[in-house]
Amino acid sequence: MHVSEIDTPALVVDLDILERNLGRVADYTKEHDLRLRPHTKTHKSPRIGKRQLESGAVGLTVAKVSEAEVMLGAEPADLLVAYPIIGRTKLERLMEVARRARVTVALDSTFAARQLSDAARAAQVEVGVLAEVDVGLGRVGVCPGAQLLQLAQAIEKLPHLTFEGITFYPGQVKDLDEAGLRALAQVGEILHSILAEFRAAGMEVKIVSGGSTPTLYHSHELAGLTEIRPGTYVYNDVNTVRSGGCAMEDCAASVLATVVSTAHAGQMIVDGGSKTFSSDRLVNSSEVTFGHVVEAPGARFHKMNEEHGYIDITRAEREFSIGDRVHIVPNHICVAVNLHEQMYGLRGETVEEIWKVEGRGKLQ
Amino acid sequence: MHVSEIDTPALVVDLDILERNLGRVADYTKEHDLRLRPHTKTHKSPRIGKRQLESGAVGLTVAKVSEAEVMLGAEPADLLVAYPIIGRTKLERLMEVARRARVTVALDSTFAARQLSDAARAAQVEVGVLAEVDVGLGRVGVCPGAQLLQLAQAIEKLPHLTFEGITFYPGQVKDLDEAGLRALAQVGEILHSILAEFRAAGMEVKIVSGGSTPTLYHSHELAGLTEIRPGTYVYNDVNTVRSGGCAMEDCAASVLATVVSTAHAGQMIVDGGSKTFSSDRLVNSSEVTFGHVVEAPGARFHKMNEEHGYIDITRAEREFSIGDRVHIVPNHICVAVNLHEQMYGLRGETVEEIWKVEGRGKLQ
Repeated sequence: MHVSEIDTPALVVDLDILERNLGRVADYTKEHDLRLRPHTKTHKSPRIGKRQLESGAVGLTVAKVSEAEVMLGAEPADLLVAYPIIGRTKLERLMEVARRARVTVALDSTFAARQLSDAARAAQVEVGVLAEVDVGLGRVGVCPGAQLLQLAQAIEKLPHLTFEGITFYPGQVKDLDEAGLRALAQVGEILHSILAEFRAAGMEVKIVSGGSTPTLYHSHELAGLTEIRPGTYVYNDVNTVRSGGCAMEDCAASVLATVVSTAHAGQMIVDGGSKTFSSDRLVNSSEVTFGHVVEAPGARFHKMNEEHGYIDITRAEREFSIGDRVHIVPNHICVAVNLHEQMYGLRGETVEEIWKVEGRGKLQ
Repeated sequence: MHVSEIDTPALVVDLDILERNLGRVADYTKEHDLRLRPHTKTHKSPRIGKRQLESGAVGLTVAKVSEAEVMLGAEPADLLVAYPIIGRTKLERLMEVARRARVTVALDSTFAARQLSDAARAAQVEVGVLAEVDVGLGRVGVCPGAQLLQLAQAIEKLPHLTFEGITFYPGQVKDLDEAGLRALAQVGEILHSILAEFRAAGMEVKIVSGGSTPTLYHSHELAGLTEIRPGTYVYNDVNTVRSGGCAMEDCAASVLATVVSTAHAGQMIVDGGSKTFSSDRLVNSSEVTFGHVVEAPGARFHKMNEEHGYIDITRAEREFSIGDRVHIVPNHICVAVNLHEQMYGLRGETVEEIWKVEGRGKLQ
């Protein structure tokens, strides 16, 4: 199948770039003796999870129980559920997963730990637990210090749970500029004192799990870190480019779209909007654009409705007619992938493989 | 099944409100002798499409060929594809639809009309066409005047096409305040001169199709309008409330979510973010909030990541604990529905029906 036979809008992936992205992270983690447990929220596909495992990942990360169920398809030895699992239905399903792979859960409350322990006891399985600490994002995670230590101690006492260590997400570091690197250094200092406190309390911290795609290649600068969970690096996107985390040439995935209207001078409408790209805006920027037009970087994707992308072509490098097809790299690839049923893997202009986004819409 | 047995996050629909919304529009269109051809982009479910037809709609509207295929399940006599259909694959599929229901296509170029005519001739079917005119949104649609007349005349000459009339979307009218009503009156004036021009050219305009949810109950003020295509009215959402188009009590759909973390004072995290609600912001407001917490309107859903909703509860009317469940009305229900596999129809606290969102992700 030739790329021209793909109907639009569709998500296409350059397999050469994908493989280069996987290899680069595998090399980096090997060089710095870091364990790689990539977050599968970006691709949502066991097929890509399997490639990550084959290229050196020790396990996979998910946010939802239903995603864990899907990712069993990649046959991971180890699954990290980086989200507090609350409620009986989810916990019972998670225990079924724990029968087929080693499961570790990240949580930030003794409430969640107790529920997990009860479910694990009922199912007669052992589950690993990471205590989630907030290092500046202000989302989930207890504060460093007494709260964290108390959470860890509570986990340690609960039957069928094993306290494995701590986890954090440095999501507040969005740019690798001077301020960003300073914020990352602060994360390093927080980790340093946390680990000292645990040593003083005589508690072993086997796993220190962190990492995001923007900060990926600075992970080795955080002393004590043992594993990273980047997600976006597999495909990359405009936000990652803008953060300084990669170059535009490292973006493996894009939306193939068709020009459907040129009724207004200086503007073209493409057949994708918020239901195709998501309405995620640029991170850390007041500029409103929704993607990068590969064929004409001077074109500006400045507005969207559900099925309409408005592209200002007054500064585009070429002209466009109805029926023309363009590749547009989304701002945030993870949410864009979640909107598509399948992805097309390209080697040059040949569709080498098509895979289903099996984790799409797995919200529970 | 009791509502408490639904796992979260999930989209729930109050069937009493849904039925009231359907009835109200049916009454309004009957009273003003307007044809109702609701846009199914909001619910994406043949089951709801069927209810719309049963309550007086003359047909259904879709934006994509794949949505038309799905909506055949509602057995509509008439399907309007309110989107220019470009490319052979889509046109061939559309002709299959045209064998099972009367199809009308809205388009804004002779390029699209010619492609459609060729496909209709090859398939030996007749297709209705509406010429799309831009009345101020600046999206698709030719300018009123000579361009529109030329497009209509081109359509009239093409074999297997029937020129039915004109269509427009007054999407620039977002609020029913003074400025909004003035903008709507301008639309009325534009329509008036368009119809005069067609009369002068001796061309019959059988259908004048317009309407949006915010402007819905002002449709009868636009002289010459024959049909409306509102979508959102079936469920409504925060944007519709803010536009003045309905009250909060008219919002039939909400996301049922669970509190998963209260690690930070004054904040709770719920188990849904941009993958559950969409990252659509409020229309015409610089305020950044992502939904209305029914149980505590003073709570502020001010930030989200993919799977995390950040809710500021410093001004909430009640306290919250991990495990508590809340109903949150999204800003934009159409894109939220597109993220969910199914919806739960509630009568009081009983799940009376569950339906699949069959049109979810039908992008092509």
